[in-house]
Amino acid sequence: MTAAVTREDVVAAARRISGRVLRTPVLEISPGLYLKLELLQHSGSFKVRGAFNRVLSAGPLPDSGVIAASGGNHGLAVAYVARALGVRAEIFVPEVTSPVKVAGLAALGAHITQTGAVYAEAAEAAAKRAAETGALPVHAYDQPEVIAGQGTTGLEIMEQTGGVDTVLVAVGGGGLAAGVTLGTSAPDGGGPRVVAVEPELIPTLHAALRAGGPVPVEVSGVGADALGASRLGGLAYDLLSGPRVRSVLVPDEAIVAARRALWERHRLVAEHAGAAAYAALLAGAYEREEGERVAVVVCGSNTDPATL
Amino acid sequence: MTAAVTREDVVAAARRISGRVLRTPVLEISPGLYLKLELLQHSGSFKVRGAFNRVLSAGPLPDSGVIAASGGNHGLAVAYVARALGVRAEIFVPEVTSPVKVAGLAALGAHITQTGAVYAEAAEAAAKRAAETGALPVHAYDQPEVIAGQGTTGLEIMEQTGGVDTVLVAVGGGGLAAGVTLGTSAPDGGGPRVVAVEPELIPTLHAALRAGGPVPVEVSGVGADALGASRLGGLAYDLLSGPRVRSVLVPDEAIVAARRALWERHRLVAEHAGAAAYAALLAGAYEREEGERVAVVVCGSNTDPATL
Repeated sequence: MTAAVTREDVVAAARRISGRVLRTPVLEISPGLYLKLELLQHSGSFKVRGAFNRVLSAGPLPDSGVIAASGGNHGLAVAYVARALGVRAEIFVPEVTSPVKVAGLAALGAHITQTGAVYAEAAEAAAKRAAETGALPVHAYDQPEVIAGQGTTGLEIMEQTGGVDTVLVAVGGGGLAAGVTLGTSAPDGGGPRVVAVEPELIPTLHAALRAGGPVPVEVSGVGADALGASRLGGLAYDLLSGPRVRSVLVPDEAIVAARRALWERHRLVAEHAGAAAYAALLAGAYEREEGERVAVVVCGSNTDPATL
Repeated sequence: MTAAVTREDVVAAARRISGRVLRTPVLEISPGLYLKLELLQHSGSFKVRGAFNRVLSAGPLPDSGVIAASGGNHGLAVAYVARALGVRAEIFVPEVTSPVKVAGLAALGAHITQTGAVYAEAAEAAAKRAAETGALPVHAYDQPEVIAGQGTTGLEIMEQTGGVDTVLVAVGGGGLAAGVTLGTSAPDGGGPRVVAVEPELIPTLHAALRAGGPVPVEVSGVGADALGASRLGGLAYDLLSGPRVRSVLVPDEAIVAARRALWERHRLVAEHAGAAAYAALLAGAYEREEGERVAVVVCGSNTDPATL
């Protein structure tokens, strides 16, 4: 099938959101091994890239502003974007959302509704509300503009490193991984291997690849507040089921250890989900070869540093 | 007088320590305003640059290895360098040193002696011990090789930003500020303005400039565990008393607020001393002009993140 999002959309997104988001740096921690420090991004995660691209692509906004449902990071991003653009934001979050993220939303001036045990229930409530008010829905992952925005992370990785062989990136709903797959692709369609990393306890991509399409999975474990989508996005499936992508799973213990190592070795404060991609490397779920140039996306920092 | 350390020494240091230290990234937080993320450096501060340069310049080392006295960060750096090079390290630290730093020293395998109320007393004890054992002394700031090593931070700033008008950098003993003054200088001797930032409660440079040379000062406040030198280094005085350097003081409240802002806005965990340079900008002790390209060195992260 024809992809609904293209590399050109990512390039256009980069122009559209330039100056609104940070060009986060890469840190070369050993020769050829790069951390993309997307945890230093505005609002504490990559999610502002997709949110800005979606909202800036939409044309004039209604008085009811924008609306989103989110495990937390996407909500923070939409609230940040709304404040930056001077529009109203209404955010629906599930009850598992960490207090740090709820406090962050409130500080950004968003109108918050905390409802539902998991992300899907919060999303349903938000969709109903959007139909009533006419607010612009900004999906957490399954919209072309959102995926194109997240993909700008991949464009930057290629520019900042001069090119890599492999990119490791976490998967929840799949928006970031799908975008990075596009953003790192060569104009001819090739590009680096993409290692799509999921917690064993939230295997949305893994399950989708086995089933031949997105299917619901159980959501639990340390990544649930940020990788808590209970099924992969359809657009992400189209992009992540190709030959460049390898799906790997990591146990929660490996994610916890990777988060600690990011602090102890590199002085980076990542949330668990943000450490998942690095965990695949540390725990050997992905084995780097001699001389292989590898970029690891460290994608979120909305966590209480006291829990390190 | 002729400077005892030159820009050429900094260039040579960069070659000598390349691959041993991280080339820490810069983060452009708004157009033309850069944070040099030296807090992500090995051992949690810039100090490994000077320590590697000193030890690698010394030729064959005695069996007694290396010895240093330190408010903490320099000790961690010397311990890190000794472990990397497979030699013995003996570190003397004053009693005010934070438990986080002492634990870090122990984890690096250093032999630790905690003695003296302030840095100067620990330094005296270390000098006596060095005379007994023949170990190579690595000074925290007042050695040409140490200043040249710290100066590589300045070289990188100029390369990574394409050049700035002003650099803000913290001063304790003055090694980093002196090195950065050299490392950012043009081959013809010009270069960006250097804003040398000190806590009001530890004004080593400020006092030295008034007195016409280094003089003892009282040491107290939030920066004392890392900026706790009780007098400026003599080599640093020669480099920091020139026309490119402006001395500014910041109150402890501004340092505390800057440390919080680095976490809340930029997800960086800095120690108080590491936030001092940024504090000068936030609190208006240094006022940036429209369009002025400014780099701020965020120089250390050896702190307990739970205290954020």
